[in-house]
Amino acid sequence: MTERFPTHDGVVAAAQAIAAILPPTPLLPVTIGSVQVWAKAEVLQPIGAFKIRGAWWRLISLSDEERAGGVVAVSSGNHAQGVAWAARRLGIKATIVMPHDAPEVKLANTRALGADVVLYQRPQEDRDAVAAQLIAQHGGTLVHAFGDPWVIEGQGSAAIEIAAQLGRAPSRIITCCGGGGLAAGLALGAPDSAIHPVEPLGWDMVGQAMAAGELVHAAPDAPQTICDALQPNVTKPINLALLSGRAHPGVTVTDDEVRTAQRFAFNTLRLVVEPGGAAALAAALAGKVPVDEGTVIMLTGGNADPAAYAATIAAGEAGRDGTADRHTRDTQRP
Amino acid sequence: MTERFPTHDGVVAAAQAIAAILPPTPLLPVTIGSVQVWAKAEVLQPIGAFKIRGAWWRLISLSDEERAGGVVAVSSGNHAQGVAWAARRLGIKATIVMPHDAPEVKLANTRALGADVVLYQRPQEDRDAVAAQLIAQHGGTLVHAFGDPWVIEGQGSAAIEIAAQLGRAPSRIITCCGGGGLAAGLALGAPDSAIHPVEPLGWDMVGQAMAAGELVHAAPDAPQTICDALQPNVTKPINLALLSGRAHPGVTVTDDEVRTAQRFAFNTLRLVVEPGGAAALAAALAGKVPVDEGTVIMLTGGNADPAAYAATIAAGEAGRDGTADRHTRDTQRP
Repeated sequence: MTERFPTHDGVVAAAQAIAAILPPTPLLPVTIGSVQVWAKAEVLQPIGAFKIRGAWWRLISLSDEERAGGVVAVSSGNHAQGVAWAARRLGIKATIVMPHDAPEVKLANTRALGADVVLYQRPQEDRDAVAAQLIAQHGGTLVHAFGDPWVIEGQGSAAIEIAAQLGRAPSRIITCCGGGGLAAGLALGAPDSAIHPVEPLGWDMVGQAMAAGELVHAAPDAPQTICDALQPNVTKPINLALLSGRAHPGVTVTDDEVRTAQRFAFNTLRLVVEPGGAAALAAALAGKVPVDEGTVIMLTGGNADPAAYAATIAAGEAGRDGTADRHTRDTQRP
Repeated sequence: MTERFPTHDGVVAAAQAIAAILPPTPLLPVTIGSVQVWAKAEVLQPIGAFKIRGAWWRLISLSDEERAGGVVAVSSGNHAQGVAWAARRLGIKATIVMPHDAPEVKLANTRALGADVVLYQRPQEDRDAVAAQLIAQHGGTLVHAFGDPWVIEGQGSAAIEIAAQLGRAPSRIITCCGGGGLAAGLALGAPDSAIHPVEPLGWDMVGQAMAAGELVHAAPDAPQTICDALQPNVTKPINLALLSGRAHPGVTVTDDEVRTAQRFAFNTLRLVVEPGGAAALAAALAGKVPVDEGTVIMLTGGNADPAAYAATIAAGEAGRDGTADRHTRDTQRP
């Protein structure tokens, strides 16, 4: 998978290809404390998440022979929808391996996009092994959710968009981080910007790998997290290589901090953000990452489970968050 | 108030002034049945509603003397925030007359923007009389929520933005309608487009006025509606004049249809839309207004009460709407 190494030029090419079919997502002004920063609303992508970028760049880069054989992906939901969306548009058969406990909305959306969904048991079954077995039996090209070089380049296209919207390189990009595909792509796409990956408490497999200098697997007793989109068992060597010495790791957020961020996005941005999509905002609101006027916060996904989202929003009504809900929002043309 | 009559040229000038401080709101693709139409996401304005347009155009058009005397507005919440936002930015004192039962989020946001809020009892007190008394005592310029010519021109700026984003005039614009300020502005700003105002059941004061050819007041026993932003007692002569023979009235929506539209926006657009902001989408989803590929649906406001919004979203989970939630979303560059 890593015979091709992702590059800045590859990110630029991906951004051009993606701009041909997807309008830029808005860069919205948002005030954190007293600092006006920017929120990149990837929740407004057609599938509700940035994953459409990497999936599109990977699938249009397939050879005719590869296209004919179909694609196989493994995903808790957003990469699944990205691959399914791109595959349907290109007339490619897509088979997606998803955890049995993926949010219903993500399973339904993936199926609605025409993909075949194969469920596996989390954590007993190894999802990569399930995918490998499918490919051994039926053929097809694996589109890895974060370790694929084209996927990394595609996700990085967001950085090219951001720089064009701001008219300059952002000082820093704070991003939600699962396996590290987006973080690695942003590091490539925004070489002059600090990159701050934010991970759920206990699921900081990128942060731990960077600290250890080698891959680290999730602990068997890792805590529950509401960030279903940010639960990789382990990152990949390519992500670790691209992020080492480049990103500022070590930032984790709790479920409560994430819920506060979801309510903040509801109240001040009128955007629906799923838990895993709100991790970067949560870190900024909690003061865990420095912010300045050139800061961009990635809002990576908005495929929220309705019942869980309703409970989060209603809880904010009952016990209104102090600081977060009192942040105000002002605007300024980028 | 009507010594100045709003014009298409005025709308164009308003659009230029507004573009200088506010980036265009996204025009998002959305599929209604099998037709791909467009949703204008005015919920992404800094105050969460289109009202910022008319307020800005009105306030920057004040003379120095008028600015020094301050402004007075009457509003259930979104016009209040628009005027407060513009006034703060221009250093103008703003006093806003709001109903005592306005959503808490709108009261809090208006105060947070630095405006003085004066409450009145709905329906016992005449809100316009309260405002007139304030002006008689303390001076100031009234900024009417929908009958002011500059406000109408400002709201119409959305039509100029839409045409630029689509690259052509929309075939039709379906819009939420309260007093008719936005509908009248759109009629001026999009002279080649059909205009479809959508009003809450029992509060179709624009539709009834157009049918009668004269102003009609809300019935004392008008039904409850969750669309707090769309409850005028009566429209104004200027709105009736601009819409007569121009708009297609007579479309009303029920609370249930509005809630279905709110859930649709949550699930497929990842946008928070308040009840009054979802009326146009509700009419389209219910098949009450024809749609074609050049159709634009206005999503006018996103300042939703958290508890009510949570209940609406949770109800969708329990008894998932059939057709609405199965609509899918695809994209296409405008």
